[in-house]
Amino acid sequence: MPMNFDLVSYLKERQVLINDSLEKYLPLKEDLTRGLLKAMRYSLFAGGKRLRPILCLAAVETVGGDMELSLPIACALEMIHTYSLIHDDLPAMDNDDLRRGKPTNHKVFGEATALLAGDGLLTEAFFVMSNQGINSMVTPQRLLRIIQLVADAASCRGMAGGQIVDLESEGKEISFPVLEFIHAHKTGALITASLEAGAVAAGADSAARDAFVAYGRHFGLAFQITDDILDVIGDSKVMGKPAGSDEEKGKSTFPALFGLDRAKEMASQHVKEALVSLECFDQKADPLRALVRYLLERRK
Amino acid sequence: MPMNFDLVSYLKERQVLINDSLEKYLPLKEDLTRGLLKAMRYSLFAGGKRLRPILCLAAVETVGGDMELSLPIACALEMIHTYSLIHDDLPAMDNDDLRRGKPTNHKVFGEATALLAGDGLLTEAFFVMSNQGINSMVTPQRLLRIIQLVADAASCRGMAGGQIVDLESEGKEISFPVLEFIHAHKTGALITASLEAGAVAAGADSAARDAFVAYGRHFGLAFQITDDILDVIGDSKVMGKPAGSDEEKGKSTFPALFGLDRAKEMASQHVKEALVSLECFDQKADPLRALVRYLLERRK
Repeated sequence: MPMNFDLVSYLKERQVLINDSLEKYLPLKEDLTRGLLKAMRYSLFAGGKRLRPILCLAAVETVGGDMELSLPIACALEMIHTYSLIHDDLPAMDNDDLRRGKPTNHKVFGEATALLAGDGLLTEAFFVMSNQGINSMVTPQRLLRIIQLVADAASCRGMAGGQIVDLESEGKEISFPVLEFIHAHKTGALITASLEAGAVAAGADSAARDAFVAYGRHFGLAFQITDDILDVIGDSKVMGKPAGSDEEKGKSTFPALFGLDRAKEMASQHVKEALVSLECFDQKADPLRALVRYLLERRK
Repeated sequence: MPMNFDLVSYLKERQVLINDSLEKYLPLKEDLTRGLLKAMRYSLFAGGKRLRPILCLAAVETVGGDMELSLPIACALEMIHTYSLIHDDLPAMDNDDLRRGKPTNHKVFGEATALLAGDGLLTEAFFVMSNQGINSMVTPQRLLRIIQLVADAASCRGMAGGQIVDLESEGKEISFPVLEFIHAHKTGALITASLEAGAVAAGADSAARDAFVAYGRHFGLAFQITDDILDVIGDSKVMGKPAGSDEEKGKSTFPALFGLDRAKEMASQHVKEALVSLECFDQKADPLRALVRYLLERRK
């Protein structure tokens, strides 16, 4: 990686681009449904890192495509991620009061509206992805493949499946394969789909797509392990949510299962393997390289 | 309508076809996510009338198409309808214990699983619609248009928008335009989209599509008014849910706003107008004619 790649500026620039597009796709309107739109927008603009859309745009650029072509799809991925956070935070699920330093959606708008805000964002994601007007640079065949792979990643075979196993495992001793299943599905599936969606939008070949799937898998696990580590040693103020909440809820985590040192080693190993999977690409993959390296330094 | 059209047999035959297809698209699997799949399937196979998929298939046949081509789309519409029922029944929303004579999803599986079952069904609908393998008789362009119009109908501009206004109106006196807004969105949008989806799948012209939109609008309102009437005068045993629940929850209804006799007249009027909108079609629209007439005789 060239030493002059400035990840912080890169992330900021991309976040602005994504936020502007999200604003365009989901503007506030003055009608009877204003209350619902406000709730949807509250969580969508609550300071998310925009990791999934950034990975999607970076995948397009890695294979030489124009990132603009996947901007609506990138925004749809963020809508799906946001819906999952709103529903996960509900009292019936993780019952969290804070997210990114702000009250969770149901704390501000009530449970019924939060539930609908999640439903609305999930639905809107598919509206945006199927809109041929704003996706005019992607062929209908490719758009359909993208919608299908994103739906699959969010479905009971992906994110929702990971969440049910996570919920059913609370307070239980679980094995390493089950822990890996939870994270590969709950977090990993949508991260991998973000990269794959970019690859399909740009017309990448199957070798490139396989490389992204491998990168996404290791990225997702490194992300989750560092997330678990932060929950043990992180600064609540920086993270915007209380540390120690996993233990309190009886959640199985990598540090709980393996200890902190071994968990750190595992995170490093996944970062290394993610970098190996990018060896088939030239310097256009530098943003992806920098992004996965950054996981080892993250503080929130 | 020919006197020999047997609506009861027609409905039974279509319900079997749709149930068989749903079983194919969402089989029970033996893996870690079995609990979620069971909850999704519980509500999907809880004895629904399959009204939306039947309308979708009937629209295809009305314009001379092969109904088989819209079968996956029809099933996806039922998944979306079922998701909306599961979420509407949750304690944070309508807090209902019974649906079609059976305990509601969260009563059987708990709130967290019910929430995820709804999320899973909504997501699965888009997976099924975007699957080019099972939708091989529909062009990618048309499939995208169908996904977009269905997503729009389920979104904050459609069903979810109707639900938020309904929730915000509980216990309040609302005007007739607001009541119409609620029902046109909460129930009407997906009913109209079911017909439009069939029309697009079959490549119908815009005049036919306009006719279906008009029919769907009147069908949806007649359906909702007769639903409200049944809640006042219906037989709880036949309906599988307690009568009088609208009044108990402080919901505005057509009988509450206009009285029972006027509400019945309004339902008849919408049925008449739905029939007028079908005048551009020949006898292939007889199932649609029989379906809307049937609303005036429904007992559940």
